[in-house]
Amino acid sequence: MDYPEALEELVESLQQLPTIGPKSAQRLAFWLLESPEPKALRLSEAIRSARRDIRPCCRCFNYSDRDVCAICADSNRRADLLCVVVQPKDIVALERTREYRGRYHVLGGLLSPLDGIGPGQVRIQELVDRVRQEGIQEVILALDTTVGGEATCLYLSRQLGEQTSVTRLAQGLPAGGNLDYTDEVTLGRAFRGRRRVEDLSQQG
Amino acid sequence: MDYPEALEELVESLQQLPTIGPKSAQRLAFWLLESPEPKALRLSEAIRSARRDIRPCCRCFNYSDRDVCAICADSNRRADLLCVVVQPKDIVALERTREYRGRYHVLGGLLSPLDGIGPGQVRIQELVDRVRQEGIQEVILALDTTVGGEATCLYLSRQLGEQTSVTRLAQGLPAGGNLDYTDEVTLGRAFRGRRRVEDLSQQG
Repeated sequence: MDYPEALEELVESLQQLPTIGPKSAQRLAFWLLESPEPKALRLSEAIRSARRDIRPCCRCFNYSDRDVCAICADSNRRADLLCVVVQPKDIVALERTREYRGRYHVLGGLLSPLDGIGPGQVRIQELVDRVRQEGIQEVILALDTTVGGEATCLYLSRQLGEQTSVTRLAQGLPAGGNLDYTDEVTLGRAFRGRRRVEDLSQQG
Repeated sequence: MDYPEALEELVESLQQLPTIGPKSAQRLAFWLLESPEPKALRLSEAIRSARRDIRPCCRCFNYSDRDVCAICADSNRRADLLCVVVQPKDIVALERTREYRGRYHVLGGLLSPLDGIGPGQVRIQELVDRVRQEGIQEVILALDTTVGGEATCLYLSRQLGEQTSVTRLAQGLPAGGNLDYTDEVTLGRAFRGRRRVEDLSQQG
């Protein structure tokens, strides 16, 4: 059947979204047509507002609707602790742990010389400047544990190691993980990173 | 973390959509922020246009961007054959079979006295009028095979049986179905609806 043009266009523009196939796009399109009008227009307006109002924080490059984001502006957070992530959504994941009360720096990408992404293509110079200007005591690298992540960790620790302490997130078994389902690289790193049980229990 | 307000609103308005949970909503929101601006605004505009331009066809109540939908306006389709469905998306499913070249009538719901949905709440009077005015030879009921669907079939066949021939879609084994995985109600109906093999092979 030929959809009316406006419906066809709605299905197609939903199908652009990641993980939305033709079937889901059709179901969502019908929902958007059949639900009360304010609900459907709310999404339309939210997309427009987000694209208009959201920009990178001028200090950490997290998403923000002001020049300085809520985390950078929060004076209750430690100003001498910097956690380096690739993208803003990593911050959401880290904040959910409630383990960290410092600030962030969004790199915008991982070094990948084969793809033409060198130090100039990600926000490394901005990071180096911040470490110097803000008197950062510790830089925590929270990067993917992929080849690109490892390379970027190595590069950053060389760049920053003389000015500040550079750490990275622990690697090992995931919570709730079964030993026999864990791949050998993860197991190997868990071995190398093993810690004394009494040290762990002292931390709570 | 507190999202900026515009991002929070985007995530929440995505979460209204069926089958979109908090995780998916967040992923889609970030995509809408990070993709090229025209792609994101295309969806916003498509929702707005669809709500503005799409309305029910004045004859069959299918979705249309004109007074009379493309199917009703198609003079190559049989005018004396009417297929009754509950909702416009059922038409999409039926058209995909390429088996049917008549017109449609969208009821808008199934009879359900317990939910207060009687003959006046769905488009049965409109159907009765069409059957009379358009000289319909056969009304094909393509309704869900649920309790509500059965009740509606029975009611419609009583309402229309004197004026025209009323048929309904065959019930039986689904294509590619395994006999031992088929429920007993379906199997029972497949038994009762069995047909002579030679009749079937004559139909091709």
